Amino acid sequence: LTRLIFASVCQSSPKKGDSTVPRWSAPGEEGLIRRIRRIFPEPPPEVQVSIGDDAAVVRISDRDKVVLTTDQLVEGIHFRRATHPPGLLGSRALTVNLSDLASMGAIPRWFLLTLFLPWNLPPSYLDGILRGMAREARRRGVFLVGGNLTAAPVLSLDISLVGTLGKGRKPMLRGGARPGDRLYLTGTLGGSALGLELLGAGWRWRRGKAYLQGSPAADAAAATRALRAHLAPAPDYRLASLLSRHRLASAAIDTSDGLASDLWRLCRASSVGARVEEEYLPVDSAALHLRGTERARDLALNGGEEYQLLFAVPPSREKRLLALAGRSHLRRIGSFRPTREGVVLEEKNGKTRPLEPRGFDHLRKIPG
Amino acid sequence: LTRLIFASVCQSSPKKGDSTVPRWSAPGEEGLIRRIRRIFPEPPPEVQVSIGDDAAVVRISDRDKVVLTTDQLVEGIHFRRATHPPGLLGSRALTVNLSDLASMGAIPRWFLLTLFLPWNLPPSYLDGILRGMAREARRRGVFLVGGNLTAAPVLSLDISLVGTLGKGRKPMLRGGARPGDRLYLTGTLGGSALGLELLGAGWRWRRGKAYLQGSPAADAAAATRALRAHLAPAPDYRLASLLSRHRLASAAIDTSDGLASDLWRLCRASSVGARVEEEYLPVDSAALHLRGTERARDLALNGGEEYQLLFAVPPSREKRLLALAGRSHLRRIGSFRPTREGVVLEEKNGKTRPLEPRGFDHLRKIPG
Repeated sequence: LTRLIFASVCQSSPKKGDSTVPRWSAPGEEGLIRRIRRIFPEPPPEVQVSIGDDAAVVRISDRDKVVLTTDQLVEGIHFRRATHPPGLLGSRALTVNLSDLASMGAIPRWFLLTLFLPWNLPPSYLDGILRGMAREARRRGVFLVGGNLTAAPVLSLDISLVGTLGKGRKPMLRGGARPGDRLYLTGTLGGSALGLELLGAGWRWRRGKAYLQGSPAADAAAATRALRAHLAPAPDYRLASLLSRHRLASAAIDTSDGLASDLWRLCRASSVGARVEEEYLPVDSAALHLRGTERARDLALNGGEEYQLLFAVPPSREKRLLALAGRSHLRRIGSFRPTREGVVLEEKNGKTRPLEPRGFDHLRKIPG
Repeated sequence: LTRLIFASVCQSSPKKGDSTVPRWSAPGEEGLIRRIRRIFPEPPPEVQVSIGDDAAVVRISDRDKVVLTTDQLVEGIHFRRATHPPGLLGSRALTVNLSDLASMGAIPRWFLLTLFLPWNLPPSYLDGILRGMAREARRRGVFLVGGNLTAAPVLSLDISLVGTLGKGRKPMLRGGARPGDRLYLTGTLGGSALGLELLGAGWRWRRGKAYLQGSPAADAAAATRALRAHLAPAPDYRLASLLSRHRLASAAIDTSDGLASDLWRLCRASSVGARVEEEYLPVDSAALHLRGTERARDLALNGGEEYQLLFAVPPSREKRLLALAGRSHLRRIGSFRPTREGVVLEEKNGKTRPLEPRGFDHLRKIPG
C-alpha cells in the first residue's frame, strides 16, 4: 500500500510493565517514513505516485498503469479474535485495501493474500475468514491470484491489492487541493471508534445486531450502528468512482486514521491549509446517543477506521457533484485555505482552534 | 508469492506444553491451499498464472503483463534477532522475493514493504535492516514504491514484488516438464539448512565470517560457507535470465523448501515423475565436512531456503544450455520420467527409493 502510515499505533499500547515504550515511534511514523525515503533509492519516472499517497501508481508502458496498495489486520492490534466475527474480519481485510484504491479512483482487480497463522487457530475461525473474504471479493469483482502462508505468533491477514485506472483516467491524489476548494466527506464520523469502545465494554455482534445483557433497546440500536461501522466498514465505492470518472475532486484520501490526521495529510500533500466547521461535522448519531456531545465530537475528530472519502472539490464543479451524488451520504464540512491559515476547526461559538492529529509533532509545520 | 506454500512450518514447532499442535496443518498446507482455491472465485482468463506457481502472471492489456509475488520473514519462525545481522536480514527479505520472480523468468521492478514492528525493536536494528534492503534494491535495480507500517508482537518483514516479462517472453512455469527432460539444479544443497543448525549451536556471523569460540580453523571455514548460504542466499539471477531469454527450460521452480518438496511440486504441476541420481547431488562441502555423509545427504534432500533454481531442460536444448551456462554452478542431477514411475532417488548402490517431501501425505498421489 504505499500508505506507509502507522495507523495501528493509535489503537494499541505497550504491554503493562514494558518499559521500552515505542522507541522507534519517538519521531513517530512520519519520522520513520522520512528515514525510509532517505535510505531507499528515488524511484524512476515511471513510478508516478510513490510513498506518501493512498496507493502507488506505476506506468507499465505508454498505455498501461497499475495501482498498488497493501494493508494488514494484526491480531491484538487491529482486532481481537474474541470480539471479531471471522466472516466480517475476512471481508474487512479486503475492504481496507479496496478503500485505498477507491480513494485513488482506481479499479481494484487482483490481490495476493498472506495468512500469518498461529498454532492455536481453530480451523472453523480460519474457514469463516476465508468465506467472508471470498464473499466480499465476489461482490467487488476482485480475484485472489496468489499469496503465502506462514506460521506466526498471532493471526494476521495481509493483502496486497493491484488495480488499474480506467481509460484516460488520472489517479485522484492527495496533493491537488487548492485554497478555495470545498472540503467534502462521505458517511459519518466517530461510529467506528465508538464500535471499538463498545466491543471493549462487552458488547458483541450476534446475528447482525449488537448485544449486551441487560442493555436498553435504544442503546442496542445505537450500538448496532456503531459495531457495524467498526466491524463492517462500507466505503462509498460508487461515489469514489463518480468522482474519478467526472474529475470532480482535486484531491482525495480515505479516512483511516481519523479526520484530523487524514485532513492534515491531505493539506500537507497539497500545501494548503483548511478550515473545518464544527457545526457541519456529520457526527455519528450512535456516538451522540451513547456518549454525549463532547465525547462524540472527540470521536468524530480523532476516531479512525471509518474508511470513508475525504476530498476537495473546486467551486466550479460543486454543482455537478451534488447533481451526481444521488443517494451518497455526502457532507460539505469546510473549505481549503492558504497554507498560512493552518488546519483549523471553527467551533460552533465562532472561535477557531488548530485541528491537530493525535500524536501531532508540534515542531513540524505544514510545508509550503 | 502466489506460492501459497507453507514454507515456514518445517522450521518451527509449537511451544512446549502447547497441546494444540497445528490443527489447521492436519491436512497440511496443501489442504489449506486446496480449500482456498475452492472457496475463492476462479480468476478470469487475464490471470494467466494463479495460485500454485512461484508467482502470479496477470495480463493488464494485449501488450502488458505483470508478475506478482509476496514473501515474509517472521521473527521466531524464519529468523532470530540475536543471530541474524540486520543488514543481511534486510537484503534477505528482498532476495526471497527476487528468487520467486527469477524462477519465472520475470524482471523484478517495484516493491511494497510492510514492516511489522514490535515495541521493543531497537532503532539501530531497524535501521540496519533498511540499509541492507536498500543496498540489495540498488544492486538489483528494484524500487520501493509504497507499503505500510504496523505494530505487531514480533518483527516481520513483508514484501510484495511486482515484475514484468521481457518483450515476447513467456514465464517459466512449474508445469512444463516432460518425460525425458533433464533435471538441473544451480548451486549446492544443504548449506543453508546447515547454517541454520550452526546458528542454533552458537556460531555467529562476525565481520563476514563464522565465529565460535575455540573452533578449529577448518570448521570455521566450513561454517562461514554454511552461514553465508543461510544468511545471504544468492540466487543465480544471471542464469535464470538466460534460461528465460533462450527458452532453455521447459519448467522451473526456486528451491525454498528443500529439493524433495520442490521437485515434488514441479513434478505434480507437470504431471510427470522424476529420478534423481544420488551420486550427482551437489551436496555442500560444508555439510560434508561438519556433518558427515549420511547427515549431509539428509540436509541436501530436505534442507530448505537455498533459493536456487531447479529446472527441466529438453534434451534438444541441453547443449545450448551448457554452452551458455558459463560461470554458473550448474549440475544435472537426474531426469524426468513418466508419471507412473513416481519421484524417486536412485542411490549410489543402484537401488531406488521414493523421494518424499518432509511431511508428505502418503494418501496423495501425483495426479496424471
